[in-house]
Amino acid sequence: MNREEIIVSVRMLLQNPDPDAFRRLVRECPPADIAEVLRDAAPQQVSALLLTLPSREQARLFVELLDAEQDAVLAATPSGPAATLIGDLPPDERADLYNRLSSDGRERLIPLLAQAEREDVLRLAAYPEGTAGSVTTSAYATVSAGMTVGDSLQELRTSAPDKETINVVYVIDGDGRLRGTIPLRELVLNRADTKVEELMQTDPVLVRSNDPDDKATEYIRRYNMLAVPVVDGDERMIGIVTVDDAMDIDREQDATQLARYGGTSAVGGPDLDLKDSSFLRIYGTRVFWLGLLTVFGLITSNFVAAQEDILAEVIILAAFLAPIIDMGGNTGSQSATLVLRSMALGQMQLRWRDIGFVIRRELGVALALGASIAVLEVVLTYFTKGDIGGEVLAIVGLSMLTCTVVGGVLGSLLPFLARKIGTDPATLSAPLITSIMDLVGVFIYFGFAYWFLADLIA
Amino acid sequence: MNREEIIVSVRMLLQNPDPDAFRRLVRECPPADIAEVLRDAAPQQVSALLLTLPSREQARLFVELLDAEQDAVLAATPSGPAATLIGDLPPDERADLYNRLSSDGRERLIPLLAQAEREDVLRLAAYPEGTAGSVTTSAYATVSAGMTVGDSLQELRTSAPDKETINVVYVIDGDGRLRGTIPLRELVLNRADTKVEELMQTDPVLVRSNDPDDKATEYIRRYNMLAVPVVDGDERMIGIVTVDDAMDIDREQDATQLARYGGTSAVGGPDLDLKDSSFLRIYGTRVFWLGLLTVFGLITSNFVAAQEDILAEVIILAAFLAPIIDMGGNTGSQSATLVLRSMALGQMQLRWRDIGFVIRRELGVALALGASIAVLEVVLTYFTKGDIGGEVLAIVGLSMLTCTVVGGVLGSLLPFLARKIGTDPATLSAPLITSIMDLVGVFIYFGFAYWFLADLIA
Repeated sequence: MNREEIIVSVRMLLQNPDPDAFRRLVRECPPADIAEVLRDAAPQQVSALLLTLPSREQARLFVELLDAEQDAVLAATPSGPAATLIGDLPPDERADLYNRLSSDGRERLIPLLAQAEREDVLRLAAYPEGTAGSVTTSAYATVSAGMTVGDSLQELRTSAPDKETINVVYVIDGDGRLRGTIPLRELVLNRADTKVEELMQTDPVLVRSNDPDDKATEYIRRYNMLAVPVVDGDERMIGIVTVDDAMDIDREQDATQLARYGGTSAVGGPDLDLKDSSFLRIYGTRVFWLGLLTVFGLITSNFVAAQEDILAEVIILAAFLAPIIDMGGNTGSQSATLVLRSMALGQMQLRWRDIGFVIRRELGVALALGASIAVLEVVLTYFTKGDIGGEVLAIVGLSMLTCTVVGGVLGSLLPFLARKIGTDPATLSAPLITSIMDLVGVFIYFGFAYWFLADLIA
Repeated sequence: MNREEIIVSVRMLLQNPDPDAFRRLVRECPPADIAEVLRDAAPQQVSALLLTLPSREQARLFVELLDAEQDAVLAATPSGPAATLIGDLPPDERADLYNRLSSDGRERLIPLLAQAEREDVLRLAAYPEGTAGSVTTSAYATVSAGMTVGDSLQELRTSAPDKETINVVYVIDGDGRLRGTIPLRELVLNRADTKVEELMQTDPVLVRSNDPDDKATEYIRRYNMLAVPVVDGDERMIGIVTVDDAMDIDREQDATQLARYGGTSAVGGPDLDLKDSSFLRIYGTRVFWLGLLTVFGLITSNFVAAQEDILAEVIILAAFLAPIIDMGGNTGSQSATLVLRSMALGQMQLRWRDIGFVIRRELGVALALGASIAVLEVVLTYFTKGDIGGEVLAIVGLSMLTCTVVGGVLGSLLPFLARKIGTDPATLSAPLITSIMDLVGVFIYFGFAYWFLADLIA
């Protein structure tokens, strides 16, 4: 069934519920596709449809809904079935959902859960957002160090249905500490009497529960892992972060970087989200940055205002103010982005060798760019506004050239500066680069203006 | 061994080669960590060190080097061992390496490969960059539809060492067509006499070899897959794209988006890369965008130049030009980024419902922002530059307010416009938004100026 057919089928089933037909659909089609169609349905309808499924199937479908949808569907579900569904959720999803409930909601839920699930959700939900612990699932496969391959496969057959993944098996000692890891592959390919200790990878890569979640992602990407084990402060294993969650963390990470670069970096707290953040939060974060840029811009405008004398003589200078200082910002934006990109791909770090490389490259390119743009600007100006004095053209051309070069080099150094002061380089946002170049640009511009036209003021 | 210890050990081994010690190190430590230290060594040293390892281990370490390093090390290796190494590479890495060789290099290599490897590399290397085929590996595990679980496990034991992953097993019919998929987990958990046909997932999610590579990534993320099968034009399976490669594609994708947003979108061809792209390519791409922005800016400056009369009367107006038109660009940058972020996270699409939502939200926030910033600017101006006329303050305040609102709303609509005309929304870059707002801003500014000061010119 392709996605169009799934969409049609699910819509029909929402209108005319048919439990058998729905169960068949769920068995054959990917849950993500079915969940997408349910997105547009009323929570009550979705809840009713879900409850026609066996509990395990409910959970598989439920986790594909967006957070807000999960909450709405749950609110439309009676307590008993809701608690059963929650009990069957993967531990990491369950902990996230728990954290989204109001304290009333949590108080009502906890008594309805089985003891094991209650302890599990309370433990996982306690990890702060942004830590590895907060994206950990406790549904992982374990064997003891003394087992053989045969024992292990037997153990897996018993416990596997509850495990998110058994592709990596974790070897635990009596104290719950991680001794090593074995890929399922190795258990399959070796003789039943082989000891697990001989096959396992000792000293495995792991993260601690209070490490940032992007450390887990970094390790998964760097070492091509399917999952990375997470240990607590006592070195006891509490769960794993799986590669699919790592991909989701990555995606949010990049969305954050984009937000920062565009000047909407939320100071403390999660990113601004168009749908989820309150008016006050969006306003507050944005007015902070715009206010900062305004104050910065005041320096620029006061400086320009102080040049009244020369402006009075050569009004036309005012016309070129914007394009020239803009060019510094545009070039700086380009070079900063190139450096940011290199850093994001791991090609560049905060070391003199890389900084030197960047400056050398940028100087050459910016000179060529500045010369080209300066010529373009002067030529276009001459032909569209004929009565322009030679000195003004010279001022415009030289300012363009200098602004481009200075802008380009400064822009390429800003990400390194950000790293040096310990901030995310993307926070040196496009608007900030532009504002800095504005100020630098007016100094350059009026510098040339006075040089060429000093006699006019004297 | 932690990373510092690995660094020290490898450095010592580079100075004083000790094949046994190196082999022990390679067995115990993640290849990615060892490769990182080799990064700073001369290609000849790395080559010599690699050749002390068994061929399979060489390949595992070799693939962790960056592309440029791989090429350098290969060039420093004699043909025989080089060909053996290449023969042992994972098929997707081998195809990439082949595509990086000069035509001379390829001619020298091909005769040295075994036939199976020769055919494989020629087939995979033929897929254009950016397609699913170009990131496909042909080392996947297959079984026939008629097999039992027991047969399958036997088959895997024989062929597994050459397979990149056996966590998903592909069920192929006599014509090489994909009939279904089975997770290794299912083979382990079921009885040996169960037929594979009963367990397999039919109608599996797959991509075609000429689909874009990010489609493979999208499916892997959406359906939480470990690998997605790739078929050719005849529906025959040619290989798989694995989740670790999907993470790398994602990472490059986001770097591309950042590059576009910063105004360095490469028109056709791969992204600009600070290290790899030639001077001419970097210059050419950047001068195209800067030139475009210059021409656009010319419209703005010509308009301002035409306002000579009013500027002559009220020089001070020139001082505020920059901060006011900047504010439109800054606000637009913010709102565009928020929309871009939502689109990237799949929360928003090109439909009236989402556009309406965005406009309603942005109008409110931008009004609040505009009012706040306008008050801030007027107050700061009054207190830092005392002798300002009331009309000028009114012009500045109202322009600030209007520019912010217009900028914010326009900025939030631009990503939708980009989607509508079929271009990547991030290409509506920060510099472009700024330039558009410059022009809009000067119209607004001088509009208010004439309104308040018309009598001065009359």
